[in-house]
Amino acid sequence: MSPKITGELLRQLRHAMRNCKYFSEPIQAYIVPSGDAHQSEYIAPCDCRREFISGFNGSAGTAIITEQHAVMWTDGRYFLQASQQMDNNWTLMKMGLKETPSQEDWLISVLPENSRVGVDPWIIAADQWKTMSKALSSAGHSLVALQDNLIDVVWIDRPERPSKQLRTLGLEYTGISWHDKITALRAKMTERKITWFVATALDEIAWLFNLRGADIEYNPVFFAYSIVGMNSIRLFVDLKRLQIPAVKEHLQLDSPSKPELNIQTFPYESVYTELQAVCAALSPKDKVWICDKASCALTQVIPKSNRSPIPYTPLCLAKAVKNETEIQGMKVAHIKDAVALCELFAWLEKEIPKSTVTEISCAEKAEEFRSQQKDFIGLSFPTISGVGPNGAIIHYRPLPETNRTLTMNEVYLIDSGAQYIDGTTDVTRTMHFGTPSAFEKECFTYVLKGHIAVSAAIFPNGTKGHLLDSFARAALWESGLDYLHGTGHGVGCFLNVHEGPCGISYKTFADEPLEAGMIVSDEPGYYQEGSFGIRLENVVLVVAAKPKYNYRNRGSLTFEPLTLVPIQVKMMNTELLTQRERDWVNDYHRKCREVVGAELERQGRKQALDWLIRETQPIV
Amino acid sequence: MSPKITGELLRQLRHAMRNCKYFSEPIQAYIVPSGDAHQSEYIAPCDCRREFISGFNGSAGTAIITEQHAVMWTDGRYFLQASQQMDNNWTLMKMGLKETPSQEDWLISVLPENSRVGVDPWIIAADQWKTMSKALSSAGHSLVALQDNLIDVVWIDRPERPSKQLRTLGLEYTGISWHDKITALRAKMTERKITWFVATALDEIAWLFNLRGADIEYNPVFFAYSIVGMNSIRLFVDLKRLQIPAVKEHLQLDSPSKPELNIQTFPYESVYTELQAVCAALSPKDKVWICDKASCALTQVIPKSNRSPIPYTPLCLAKAVKNETEIQGMKVAHIKDAVALCELFAWLEKEIPKSTVTEISCAEKAEEFRSQQKDFIGLSFPTISGVGPNGAIIHYRPLPETNRTLTMNEVYLIDSGAQYIDGTTDVTRTMHFGTPSAFEKECFTYVLKGHIAVSAAIFPNGTKGHLLDSFARAALWESGLDYLHGTGHGVGCFLNVHEGPCGISYKTFADEPLEAGMIVSDEPGYYQEGSFGIRLENVVLVVAAKPKYNYRNRGSLTFEPLTLVPIQVKMMNTELLTQRERDWVNDYHRKCREVVGAELERQGRKQALDWLIRETQPIV
Repeated sequence: MSPKITGELLRQLRHAMRNCKYFSEPIQAYIVPSGDAHQSEYIAPCDCRREFISGFNGSAGTAIITEQHAVMWTDGRYFLQASQQMDNNWTLMKMGLKETPSQEDWLISVLPENSRVGVDPWIIAADQWKTMSKALSSAGHSLVALQDNLIDVVWIDRPERPSKQLRTLGLEYTGISWHDKITALRAKMTERKITWFVATALDEIAWLFNLRGADIEYNPVFFAYSIVGMNSIRLFVDLKRLQIPAVKEHLQLDSPSKPELNIQTFPYESVYTELQAVCAALSPKDKVWICDKASCALTQVIPKSNRSPIPYTPLCLAKAVKNETEIQGMKVAHIKDAVALCELFAWLEKEIPKSTVTEISCAEKAEEFRSQQKDFIGLSFPTISGVGPNGAIIHYRPLPETNRTLTMNEVYLIDSGAQYIDGTTDVTRTMHFGTPSAFEKECFTYVLKGHIAVSAAIFPNGTKGHLLDSFARAALWESGLDYLHGTGHGVGCFLNVHEGPCGISYKTFADEPLEAGMIVSDEPGYYQEGSFGIRLENVVLVVAAKPKYNYRNRGSLTFEPLTLVPIQVKMMNTELLTQRERDWVNDYHRKCREVVGAELERQGRKQALDWLIRETQPIV
Repeated sequence: MSPKITGELLRQLRHAMRNCKYFSEPIQAYIVPSGDAHQSEYIAPCDCRREFISGFNGSAGTAIITEQHAVMWTDGRYFLQASQQMDNNWTLMKMGLKETPSQEDWLISVLPENSRVGVDPWIIAADQWKTMSKALSSAGHSLVALQDNLIDVVWIDRPERPSKQLRTLGLEYTGISWHDKITALRAKMTERKITWFVATALDEIAWLFNLRGADIEYNPVFFAYSIVGMNSIRLFVDLKRLQIPAVKEHLQLDSPSKPELNIQTFPYESVYTELQAVCAALSPKDKVWICDKASCALTQVIPKSNRSPIPYTPLCLAKAVKNETEIQGMKVAHIKDAVALCELFAWLEKEIPKSTVTEISCAEKAEEFRSQQKDFIGLSFPTISGVGPNGAIIHYRPLPETNRTLTMNEVYLIDSGAQYIDGTTDVTRTMHFGTPSAFEKECFTYVLKGHIAVSAAIFPNGTKGHLLDSFARAALWESGLDYLHGTGHGVGCFLNVHEGPCGISYKTFADEPLEAGMIVSDEPGYYQEGSFGIRLENVVLVVAAKPKYNYRNRGSLTFEPLTLVPIQVKMMNTELLTQRERDWVNDYHRKCREVVGAELERQGRKQALDWLIRETQPIV
């Protein structure tokens, strides 16, 4: 992978930073956050400004450019990738390491006195603006909202904002109509004395209206905003998308069933002025809910005295707790996904000895097998397909210049998933097609022990996910090992593969208690830089547990794996497993064989079925 | 235990709340926090205002009185105790339960419009003031700082503020002179560009000056403030205490070794005006460090632009990491403490069958045995001595009206500790002197498994204590059980038995990473209301661990138990223990026998030695 050459771009950007065409006084630093105006994790090509200026295309990272420096903050998943994608103009700041300064501290340490730091207020989240602005002010500097995005100024051939066709989802997929979701939202608003709610997260808007889009690759969402009051619903979206009869009918645009369910539609861009109009009519007691991670620009339209920022919205929480229809859909999607992966692994066993399979062709083959399954829409994220040392790059994506061939001699890690109309999948398996080394097996087994410790954990109702994170690490820690990423994230239902507000991580922010019906991933790993990477990921459903006692009638929870793909026994050092862990593996494999085996049989996929049966033999 | 009759007191307090003698307009609610002006956990009798007005004397709780209501918030340790100590005028709010409103939410739900809520600004911490004030303002109310404390208005016979004699500690106990501590503090200030530091926590001031007091029972501290600049040291304390030659000499009041080590002394009460004077001379760039938990009154003296509030001070962190001298002192103190407890348990075995030992007399006997040890100063907290159902009251303190007799038929829990000049102890053991039930043994064994899981955990340098909390609960959770308190707290060295900034808890606030030299407790429990209580507590030292690998050269840590008192094997269901857990118990008991046995032998305490040898037989 050769880094992007950024010298000329940075020169142009610095010229713009000094150019008073865009503002009254020059700025000394410019912040380029990762997201779009909706704080999306995955973004459309037109919003890839941080990648454009730096070359680094990981899903998380913030760039700051000053006259002298160009600096990138990113987390442990991307240390290697960022250092490979960026040229010598850039300095990498490794977040999470003790010696790495925060963005604020670093800016204060390098800026001349009374500096002005610029940022696009549509791209920076309100809570980040607040923290950054406070820190800079206290050191005599100021954070400045620039109406023109300076990256766009130097980005000559920036793509258009996409506006793909919308898809309506019926009750058979959603379980709840958008009317009922609006009614439930309004009930929450009434309960907390809130008069307006501004929805800015794309997956929340898609979920609320039971619509899906294709504006952002991998995430079935569409660019939109919504403002919901007690008697009105405003939807901001490219209006030509609403001309399709099915969408019109779904939203009852011509004949709303009740006046309070009448959706008023507006062009996407008019959200700013329309929110201004809503706010102009507020009484002093009116309260407006907006996520504290919404854009600074939109947040500041709401007068401070009326603004009620929240770390996650009622839609975010409601969406996280899946209903029975969604759970059934997710189960079906995971069975289809397992069928495709069993086919892939059976095929790999035959092909690898021929040395014809590469990281890229294997990822393509996985997609091909998935695309044969019913209601397949596309992938849920770029497939991570890494052989040997590439597997140690946590969010590796194979490129022609890094592409390695799968062999009998190296560990292979594949983290992949798909969008089906009935659900979203995300699964990682680590395999060896020859004979793994003792160290590779040892590390794999520690990761497996961690995976099982989380998956089999029983914990009280109301427990937050961060309290389970150490279970995934204990076996690694005991041998002095660890991994520099969280253990799990929320997973949407035919929505974003990463969603809040719950997860399993050593980080504790915006971490709501787990409850039955939530769906998260369980994915500990171990990465030996320059050598191999291991990760074992299942998507798991939070379900009620029935242990022997029931302290204070609180009830208990545990996880049920939705992912049903065998875990390679060859990679295990079974002597390091306890009897309970061996039992877990055998129970899991029995379920894989029963459930996925039946589907493979139904689909007549004999070779994959043979592979599944062999790979799910009990261990002793 | 009969509750305090509070009807008349509340009537008088409500009269004061309406009485414009104390303020321009009546107040509709009055908040009575738990602490004193130093936010101490244990407080002097003159500061027990919340107990005075409510009867509830637990170490944590906040009372709020309105015209109609008198409400007490406290945590799981005190639910039972608070409900027993308060009369029907009071409503208990059980913190940590989902349905319990926060103080702010509750106030907003009951107050008439535009209410004024009063509080003593010396008693409320700055961060609590901020949160409360913001929440009340956003609902149209206001938080008002009342110069007169309204509890003091109705408290006719309020005791005097104590001013006991000071004790100086030499290098043989502290390892570092106060000069060097001041120098290290100033280095931290220089590093962070801080010009002044205001010390308000009593244990930090005692630690900084290598002085101890006896103003607060159990905590060897004295009422004082200190303001440290780069060239000056101001100490605020009842001046007559400094007349003692040893103290004068220790502080070099007459002949400072260097001008910048000259301590200027002021009366305790003059801290407010003196800090005003310091602040009047600040330049705009000067920064003043003060803990965000310092009193609102003192914090607000510092102009906001100069104020740099911190969640814990550099003294707090420096004090938490014990030096070699302190560690040695703590070890010696724990051996002496173990000698006393071995004597107690050997004595109990003989006495219990006579039915002559009560919770109170047993606690007294424990104190008597401890007082025979060298450099004994006093207890480090009120002994928790609970038989049967009393053991389920988490911070139970036996009173004549609750006092039960120790028998062969019930579980006995004793949580006790002492102050020695060389260190502070805190140990809990749970015993049965007859035949425990299967359920008692089962619960004890889960608690033991949790205790061992924490004590034997290996984890990376930089891990925060909250990441270890679930290890202590996993075995209980698996059976649907839990305990409603944290797992561990920092322990001072001849200082407060509870100290920050590290600990082991599901709560994550002010939780600094663990590092070698820190000392915390490891004390999971299980409480069967109305029946029995179990807790197993050791004080443990954070030490370097040397596992097989060393990922990214981060280094690993583990714990070394300082407490060396046998854990009753009779209470264990050893079949529920893994081989590794059995090995841990046997290793621990071997160390108890070797180390404490040698000291018992040296002190010629034969009966206790026999008991120790019997109780430390290996389990198989």
